[in-house]
Formats: sequence, structure tokens, C-alpha cells
Amino acid sequence: MDFSTKLNALVARTETALDRLVPALPADAPAGPARLHAAMRHSLQAGGKRLRPVLALAAAELGGPEHIEAALPAAIALECVHTYSLIHDDLPCMDDDDLRRGRPTCHRAFDEATALLAGDALLTEAFVILAQTYAARPALAAALIRELADAANARRLIGGQMQDLLAERAAGENIPPATSAELEYIHLNKTAAMLEASLVCGGLVAGLAPAALETLRRAGRHLGLAFQIVDDVLDASAATAELGKTAGKDARDGKATYVSLHGLDRARELAAEATAQARAALAELPGDPTFLLALADRMLTRRN
Amino acid sequence: MDFSTKLNALVARTETALDRLVPALPADAPAGPARLHAAMRHSLQAGGKRLRPVLALAAAELGGPEHIEAALPAAIALECVHTYSLIHDDLPCMDDDDLRRGRPTCHRAFDEATALLAGDALLTEAFVILAQTYAARPALAAALIRELADAANARRLIGGQMQDLLAERAAGENIPPATSAELEYIHLNKTAAMLEASLVCGGLVAGLAPAALETLRRAGRHLGLAFQIVDDVLDASAATAELGKTAGKDARDGKATYVSLHGLDRARELAAEATAQARAALAELPGDPTFLLALADRMLTRRN
Repeated sequence: MDFSTKLNALVARTETALDRLVPALPADAPAGPARLHAAMRHSLQAGGKRLRPVLALAAAELGGPEHIEAALPAAIALECVHTYSLIHDDLPCMDDDDLRRGRPTCHRAFDEATALLAGDALLTEAFVILAQTYAARPALAAALIRELADAANARRLIGGQMQDLLAERAAGENIPPATSAELEYIHLNKTAAMLEASLVCGGLVAGLAPAALETLRRAGRHLGLAFQIVDDVLDASAATAELGKTAGKDARDGKATYVSLHGLDRARELAAEATAQARAALAELPGDPTFLLALADRMLTRRN
Repeated sequence: MDFSTKLNALVARTETALDRLVPALPADAPAGPARLHAAMRHSLQAGGKRLRPVLALAAAELGGPEHIEAALPAAIALECVHTYSLIHDDLPCMDDDDLRRGRPTCHRAFDEATALLAGDALLTEAFVILAQTYAARPALAAALIRELADAANARRLIGGQMQDLLAERAAGENIPPATSAELEYIHLNKTAAMLEASLVCGGLVAGLAPAALETLRRAGRHLGLAFQIVDDVLDASAATAELGKTAGKDARDGKATYVSLHGLDRARELAAEATAQARAALAELPGDPTFLLALADRMLTRRN
């Protein structure tokens, strides 16, 4: 199977599992929960690259193709956490974005309070899914929950968002922009943490050895840095229509990015270097890493 | 030990465990995470009744006093989820409250974005604490996580908040107020869900039998209803200074409450009836329910 066919197959399995695992409400549900679930699905089913689920499924497959099915709930939990972080990040008190994945953001399609609660609900739902679907394998359930909660916590995902927010405010007040070290901190935590967790969760489901899990974590870290540098490059060079979100926002906000700190050409080089480091880690893994290697390349050359 | 001495002892153990289990940051932490952790602690260490931790610890003690210590991390996880829900509920797009537990609300003491992220972080931290501290007992870890996530999810805690929000909006637009059934739905999910989970989590740590766990759940449901009716009564009859939060808000907002639907006297009777049902359930439990029975009474006669 070539790369695109396989990628599309994994994305399709993710979409089906999303619909199955994120609860629908009974027809007689009260208006509030019905609205809440509609908002959750608005953001969850807006398409998107499904990068985190695909990474989890591909990592699980390193232990054998039979692990893909077992990794689907973990993949969906990761996507729930990712989507919650986007919904809250888009809120007026944060980035105040109108457009996400080419559709109105959750608070634009519904309202702020509904978006706030829909984000809360998706974060919670991630742990519901892990605790319920892996209940027969409690050690695995606990390990997955620990991995996901650690990646999403105040030191990593949320800490990175908070630091990012302070950097944006500094830009707004003409305080000197973030340094290269500060920017790396933001990206390692805001972006790389969840990509690391995606690969490691897949590896956990497949029962990979601790050394392989640490190699997956290292690959995720480099992939995460590369991903974020490419995001900065695309924001500076792509059009809104192609990007599916407002382009050129970073420069307008005076925000420190890899492009503002290093220039467009050097940022592209840094993304390529991080991708090469990710590839080197992936090549050490047991099983066949062909798909993950091709995915790393695709992440580097993506246009949105 | 008399009731108040014991209550104070359990609250004191909760405060100590909170300080130990909710991570402090290293001195060289970036400004963002430092601010985030300060906001988390602002709301978490604002006092409060610690009702959910005390319920969990008291339920654990039904299996023997040695289970209190083991239940402390579960108790703190419950308090983290409760505090997150208060922080988000107080935000301008929700209830827009300035005062909570007699102190400025999180977004007043910090700002909206920081309060949003601090709430997110406390919800996540609850699962970090459960997954880490019970890692050596993975079946227990998974059961506690499932119980907490189910109570906090879109059908229960968050669903109740969403329905409550719609009811408040209806009041603002002179749409007929919530019916008694709708109000019970809100209270069963917004309030009772977490009190049920508190008792059941304590019982899980103590290894109580499934029948006892279901009795705890039933007791929690009645206690939760009683608690919320008393909240409505206090809002209508107490002073802000005594309450520690803005009093008289419900009537001003035209919000449907047990008092607006049934009158003050009948609401007090309904609270007493729910308390009697909780007491009847508690009396069926194994172990010595004396403390929990006294706690049910104290919850009925509380002044804030």
C-alpha cells in the first residue's frame, strides 16, 4: 500500500471510531446537553489532519497490524484533547480566532459559554474513553491515562499555552519578543508534548518495550518541533484559504516565531533538521517504520 | 472524637495533601507556568468546605481507618475537579462572578485567559494525580478515573452546567422559567454527580463491595439534592458576607430555584426530606456511619 492510500485508510478508521466513541445523546436529552454535544461534534468533526490519531495508530502497528484496532480508542482520546485545546485557544480571551479548519470556530458557531463547556467536555471525555474502553486491561488503561494526562498538564500542553499567551501579550505591549530558548519551550510543550504522547500511547497499546517507547518519545519531540516550525513558516507564507485558518496573524501581532527570529529560509532549514532527527529516531524502532518515515516527510512538506 | 473535631481533622489532612500533591514549580520555571500554578493555587487554597474530600475520606474509613491515608489522593483529585468547575463557572461568559469563598474569583485576581487555563489545568491534574499515585494498583486507578470522569463528563457535571446556563438565559429573556423536573435534572448533574463520585471513590479505595458502592452512590444523590436546595435557600435568605459569595443573585437574575418554584418554607422541607433519604441510605452501609450521618445533618443546617 502506498503512503497516501495508507494515510487515508488510517484517517477513515479514525473518523469512524470518532463517531462511535464520542457519545451521541438520546433524542429526549435536555436542550443543554444536546447543544453541548452538538458543539463538541462541530469541532471534533471539522476534518483536520488527524495527525495525533494517525501517529498513535502507526506506532501501534509497529507491534503488528492487529494492534491498530486496539489503539483506536487511545487515538480518539488524543484527538479529543487536541480539539479541546483548539476550542479554548480560539476563545476571545485567548487568540480570538474566527476560523479553524476552514469552519467557524466553536464560539463563533455557538457562543463563548458553550465553547468553554464543549472544550471542558472533550477533555473529560478523553479520560472517559480511556477508562471505559481499556477497563479489561487496567494496567494499560492506567498507563495510557498517565501518558495523556502528563502531556496535557500544567507543565506541558497548558504550560506551553500559558507561556505562549504571555509572549503574545509582551508583543502587544512592545516588550522585547521571546528569545529562541523561550520559543523552543513553548513549542516543546504546546505542540511536541501531544505528538510524543500520541506515539507513546500507540506503543503502549502494542506492548512495545520501554526502550522503544523512549525512542518514540524522542521521535515525537523532534516531529513536534518540526511541526511547529512549519506552522510558523506557513503562517508567514501561505494564504488563508489554503491554510483553513487566518494566515499572516503572527506577523500582524508582532509575535515571536521561528520566522521572525531566524528568517524564512533558516526556519525552513531548522524544520528540515528537526525532521531528520525524527527520522533518525524512527529508523531505530522495531517493526517497519516506512509509513512513519513517510509521514515525517509529509509533515515537513505540508501546505496547511 | 466529636463531629467537629473529626471534621476539622479530615479538612486539615486534605489541606496538607493538597499542598503536597498539587505540584509546586521549580524556582526557575518560565513566567507562564509560574503564573498558571499561582492561579491554580489561588482557587484551590481559598479554603472552602472541602466537602468532596471529606466525603471521600469518610467513605474510605467505612472499610477501616487505615484507608483514609490511601484515599487522600482521590480526595484531592475530586477537589481539583470541583475547583476547576467553579473557576470556569465564574468566568464572564458564564456566571460572571467576582467573589468566591470570600476572595476574588480567579479571573478577577488574574485575568480571563489565565483563569481559563488554570481551570483546564486543574481538571487535567486530577487525572495526573489518580494515574500517578495509584500506579501500583492499576485496577483501582482505572476504577477511580472512570468514576471521576463519568461524574465530570458532558452528561453529568458539564451537562448540568450547560442546562443551568440555558435556564438562566431563558430567565433573562423572560422565557418561562425551568420546571421542577428541569431543575432536578440540573441539580442531579451539576451538584449530585460529584458528591456521588466522592463517596464512591472513597469506597473504591477501601475495597467495599459493589452493593455498598451503590448504596454510597444513592446516598450521594440525595445529599447532592439536599445540598443544592440548601444553596438555593441560602442564596435567598443569607447575607453576602456570611455566604462568601454574592447573595440574592438568583432572584435578581429571575433564575428558577427551589425557592422560586416552591417557596422558602417548602424548599426547606424538601431539603430535610432529601437529607432523611440520604441518612436512610448511609445507615445501610457497612462500618460505622456515625460521622457521615452527622455530616448529612451539618450540610442541612450550614450557613454558607
